[in-house]
Amino acid sequence: MESLVLERQHELSLRDFPIEGEETLGPRDVRIKLHTVGICGSDVHYYTHGRIGPFVVNAPMILGHEASGTVTEIGAEVTTLAVGDRVCMEPGVPDPNSRATRMGMYNVDPAVRFWATPPVHGILRPSCVHPEAFTFRLPDNVSFAEAAMVEPLAVGVHAATKARIRPGDRALVLGAGPIGLVTALSALAGGCAEVFVADLDAAKLEIAAGLSPAIRTIDVSRDDPAGTVLKATDGWGCEVVFEATGSAKAAAGVFAPLCPGGVVVMIGGQPEPISYDAGAAMVREARVENIFRYAHVFPRCVAMLASGAIDVKPLITRTFDFSESVRAFEVAASAPKGDVKMQIELPQ
Amino acid sequence: MESLVLERQHELSLRDFPIEGEETLGPRDVRIKLHTVGICGSDVHYYTHGRIGPFVVNAPMILGHEASGTVTEIGAEVTTLAVGDRVCMEPGVPDPNSRATRMGMYNVDPAVRFWATPPVHGILRPSCVHPEAFTFRLPDNVSFAEAAMVEPLAVGVHAATKARIRPGDRALVLGAGPIGLVTALSALAGGCAEVFVADLDAAKLEIAAGLSPAIRTIDVSRDDPAGTVLKATDGWGCEVVFEATGSAKAAAGVFAPLCPGGVVVMIGGQPEPISYDAGAAMVREARVENIFRYAHVFPRCVAMLASGAIDVKPLITRTFDFSESVRAFEVAASAPKGDVKMQIELPQ
Amino acid sequence: MESLVLERQHELSLRDFPIEGEETLGPRDVRIKLHTVGICGSDVHYYTHGRIGPFVVNAPMILGHEASGTVTEIGAEVTTLAVGDRVCMEPGVPDPNSRATRMGMYNVDPAVRFWATPPVHGILRPSCVHPEAFTFRLPDNVSFAEAAMVEPLAVGVHAATKARIRPGDRALVLGAGPIGLVTALSALAGGCAEVFVADLDAAKLEIAAGLSPAIRTIDVSRDDPAGTVLKATDGWGCEVVFEATGSAKAAAGVFAPLCPGGVVVMIGGQPEPISYDAGAAMVREARVENIFRYAHVFPRCVAMLASGAIDVKPLITRTFDFSESVRAFEVAASAPKGDVKMQIELPQ
Amino acid sequence: MESLVLERQHELSLRDFPIEGEETLGPRDVRIKLHTVGICGSDVHYYTHGRIGPFVVNAPMILGHEASGTVTEIGAEVTTLAVGDRVCMEPGVPDPNSRATRMGMYNVDPAVRFWATPPVHGILRPSCVHPEAFTFRLPDNVSFAEAAMVEPLAVGVHAATKARIRPGDRALVLGAGPIGLVTALSALAGGCAEVFVADLDAAKLEIAAGLSPAIRTIDVSRDDPAGTVLKATDGWGCEVVFEATGSAKAAAGVFAPLCPGGVVVMIGGQPEPISYDAGAAMVREARVENIFRYAHVFPRCVAMLASGAIDVKPLITRTFDFSESVRAFEVAASAPKGDVKMQIELPQ
Repeated sequence: MESLVLERQHELSLRDFPIEGEETLGPRDVRIKLHTVGICGSDVHYYTHGRIGPFVVNAPMILGHEASGTVTEIGAEVTTLAVGDRVCMEPGVPDPNSRATRMGMYNVDPAVRFWATPPVHGILRPSCVHPEAFTFRLPDNVSFAEAAMVEPLAVGVHAATKARIRPGDRALVLGAGPIGLVTALSALAGGCAEVFVADLDAAKLEIAAGLSPAIRTIDVSRDDPAGTVLKATDGWGCEVVFEATGSAKAAAGVFAPLCPGGVVVMIGGQPEPISYDAGAAMVREARVENIFRYAHVFPRCVAMLASGAIDVKPLITRTFDFSESVRAFEVAASAPKGDVKMQIELPQ
Repeated sequence: MESLVLERQHELSLRDFPIEGEETLGPRDVRIKLHTVGICGSDVHYYTHGRIGPFVVNAPMILGHEASGTVTEIGAEVTTLAVGDRVCMEPGVPDPNSRATRMGMYNVDPAVRFWATPPVHGILRPSCVHPEAFTFRLPDNVSFAEAAMVEPLAVGVHAATKARIRPGDRALVLGAGPIGLVTALSALAGGCAEVFVADLDAAKLEIAAGLSPAIRTIDVSRDDPAGTVLKATDGWGCEVVFEATGSAKAAAGVFAPLCPGGVVVMIGGQPEPISYDAGAAMVREARVENIFRYAHVFPRCVAMLASGAIDVKPLITRTFDFSESVRAFEVAASAPKGDVKMQIELPQ
Repeated sequence: MESLVLERQHELSLRDFPIEGEETLGPRDVRIKLHTVGICGSDVHYYTHGRIGPFVVNAPMILGHEASGTVTEIGAEVTTLAVGDRVCMEPGVPDPNSRATRMGMYNVDPAVRFWATPPVHGILRPSCVHPEAFTFRLPDNVSFAEAAMVEPLAVGVHAATKARIRPGDRALVLGAGPIGLVTALSALAGGCAEVFVADLDAAKLEIAAGLSPAIRTIDVSRDDPAGTVLKATDGWGCEVVFEATGSAKAAAGVFAPLCPGGVVVMIGGQPEPISYDAGAAMVREARVENIFRYAHVFPRCVAMLASGAIDVKPLITRTFDFSESVRAFEVAASAPKGDVKMQIELPQ
Repeated sequence: MESLVLERQHELSLRDFPIEGEETLGPRDVRIKLHTVGICGSDVHYYTHGRIGPFVVNAPMILGHEASGTVTEIGAEVTTLAVGDRVCMEPGVPDPNSRATRMGMYNVDPAVRFWATPPVHGILRPSCVHPEAFTFRLPDNVSFAEAAMVEPLAVGVHAATKARIRPGDRALVLGAGPIGLVTALSALAGGCAEVFVADLDAAKLEIAAGLSPAIRTIDVSRDDPAGTVLKATDGWGCEVVFEATGSAKAAAGVFAPLCPGGVVVMIGGQPEPISYDAGAAMVREARVENIFRYAHVFPRCVAMLASGAIDVKPLITRTFDFSESVRAFEVAASAPKGDVKMQIELPQ
């Protein structure tokens, strides 16, 4: 019954790690045996840096928040799930009584408890207890591996939702990392006719190009994204620009490729103030949507995986056995070319 | 230089038919040699009934309004098109100075002049003069046949736009005729995870089922659409219902399969007042969008055909030579099973 | 410690009526001493008919759901309210775990428990226990009488919110009953330049006309609403039509006075299917919003009363002492001319 | 027949100044005798600096773009205006065939010709020729002085429209100059329950406070806007923040007073890139709307002045005779305390 514990910066161990209170199953909770857990950049960052902004690893913490598994026990009032159901889980649980939650925006509730964000433990462990309301049943044709991709996919789908894409829009995604790629897939599934993906890394762009014939890549080491987009759109620009690099330089140029009346979606999560080209935003009457994680999109993601509207399988580039977890993080920390998402499978 | 002329109800002829004023090319106009023209249900209806509602065929009229062709001459101020460009054309031209047009809603301008709507002639003829602003260049990978499908497709894309689909929504399309099918394709391309298509006609449903694995058919002769949808969605219902039958009976039941907060899009164009289940609409806080043709979607349709986001080729089930036009209309009037869209190719 | 009990149709009594379970104060609940309760048309309808649609008075039930009062006790986890706070209360409490509630649409949660809707008791009684989340503190300058108007006002504000009024819109409100009048006030406060109010009853129109110089009345016994509106808007029509009569005849004509791209808000709560002029809706590309009570608007109403953006005082036309409650209902059931809202004050 | 001519920076003269081509009245044009013209900050800036960004006064130019007057002649196809009509005029005329104009966003058409923006002349002159489509008839109860306020008011109404205010929202307006004040009035008329207005200048705040009891002022020399707003809203923040200072420092702090899910409207027209607090925007999922002048709001402004929904009269603080125009600009350039809008009346 081991868990993957980040003891402190740079030190991981696979060991027994009981979590207090986790034995208690509330009436609206389910118990889940974990099956597959994806490795997120934030997990790796806690490992390599010991913190993300104000969130500091001050005590041993279990990593992992992209997960799928099987229900093994249900609370007395649970009605939508049964023992044996294959599920994926939303890692953030808000206060149901907060003002933001009641208004339907639970992701901006400051009281959210989010897996593998200190001091809350993650789920690279044998089992967990989770609220029914944030646990979603999988259809037979969605694998555990795909289901563990729902969490990062949810960011892309939420971004595409906030963009309010109209069918036939063109989009530019800045950044071809995992979030950039799920955003490109979400933008296409969400109505775009065509999506440009820009990055400095040729290996990432090759993966992007392979995802769909409707994706066109822009190698930023060679070509200017705005210039390329304007040329391809007769000077009009893209209706949607997704900023998914987290780079201040990229963020400074988000309006140049945007068409009049277009929208920029800021996904990158810039910690520091960035430069904002107010004049360029003004003459286009640009709308800017700033997003934070996601809300209400997990069941939508599951439905799109099930119907084939989105295929995340090409993004899962490597799978480790749970016993190799520590090595998996070492590999992930080395940022190998050609890898998008690595996952860990727990013993069943 | 013959045209297909509806002389009067039930009487078609292929004959020379000069249109006064058509020789004049304005500074913002282009002249187009027609290539492919689709046969629309409204064309057939004028042939078989001599009228549609208040629009009566009182004088010989050329039929056809779904068209593609090649630019052969451009006006002095034309900047976006050149001789030799392959194009498709929007059949309705509004008054650019009307209040609705200036607000961006040119489709509801009462002064719109629309091809093959008495007394305006259609384009089953060798060439036409058309405003640059309503003529759209085709990329190389969009065929004339696909381009002549843009007009009906535009109805579906406009409906999907007005629905404001969020990625992962589920939709029900009532009706599997040509408009129902382009709506189903548009709803999927526009963000739906899954689309249910309901009809009484098994042949049409078979075509629908073949369009995408994300389409599920409901045979209304056997199954209740609302019951089927509610069962498939754990009792929640669809986020979007498209009414594309024009049947008063179908329209009366649009709210039963709808989820709380969902939207109904009325495409069918019911001429008579219909029954509206106000109580069912109320308890769901349903939104209803009523649409009329389309606005600003032709270039979007072309982009989606070019990128592969939408494939209309399976809907083009038969092609006639222009010399066989009269027979083509006779066949169309017989409503053959298994046919969706018939097209006519003009001599090049 | 008496309550106003509807023993059965046509029979009211003022008597002791303990409610089981009402003694228990949950950790997130507050106890409230009632001060003022408005008489709603639905209260009167239960009195005169013993039922509203499927809701039947099968056992004695306390009436009243438009209420204000004073907090006398708070639960252990209550943070936003204190003993002595003057408050108004939202009468419907949803299941916090329902899908609709979590999405922010608690008003369409079928599990809502709503005061004075069988079998749930109302609040014409000395005190009640209510969730903190549905209890709203009053600023000093909002009286108990105004606060008891928040419930009906909330219907108007919700309707105005769903309309998505743009500043300077013109609106037509069909119906000058209490709901029509609060809707007219809400439409003006919500951005309309001008509001037309139509009714058959000259006394009601006189009250409407007195509410604001921006309200224009239409006496339907003499003038056609659509004709009047079209004439006043140079043939364009109103951007918003609110149907607040509940009359099938009025509902059948909602599109005629509507401008292209306009919106109809159905407030009337029609129990039976109504006639829907699909053709008129189509050529305008009308949007229709169907509303059910309200969600998230009580604090907004309180803020608008406090700032003077809305003044409901002219609508409170008569006040009864609690000891006169039975007579108050007799008067209300007689539908006296010139009365809009009657209220009952409880002993303090 | 004199005009007010800016000969070059710092040099104004009142002299005869015929404009070539102005004699020609197109079929959809009207000729207007000017009555009242407001002095805008941009007029003053051309006078004191000889340029605004890329727009340089290289040749003598007539100033003025906030105007009202009387129709003296109409073109052959004009249908909505008649000789003798009192009118106000929108100063920017777009290319009716541009892509942006056709989509209803004519304000972002780069080809807009805007009065008193080099090389286009303004209207401090006896008469002008203007398109019917951008000329708006005044009701009897709207004075020429109020009508000349429609242009600046339109900026505020456009900002309030883009904000998509919901009834009962709270707003903060940064800046109490003319644009800040019309924005505050527009926000109130557009649905806000309460508007906070922040500025460093006590004299301006006094004027703001006098406009409505629903306006609360924040003296930034003493109090922090974000802190004040958060305190007044129980820590929640404002639903809308309007940035109307044009100050980089103010722009850097727009998210701090904003509530979760709120919107910031950038009106200030910052020429240089500004600092954007991406982290603060993210955790609130803020929406940002950038606006450029206005579109389709002149008739709305006229309707709101006519109905009393907005009263701009308190903003008109001084009126000059046309013969005193040069002195009027000298006074305006001195930025006198207590003045909001100065106007010039032309001889009738």
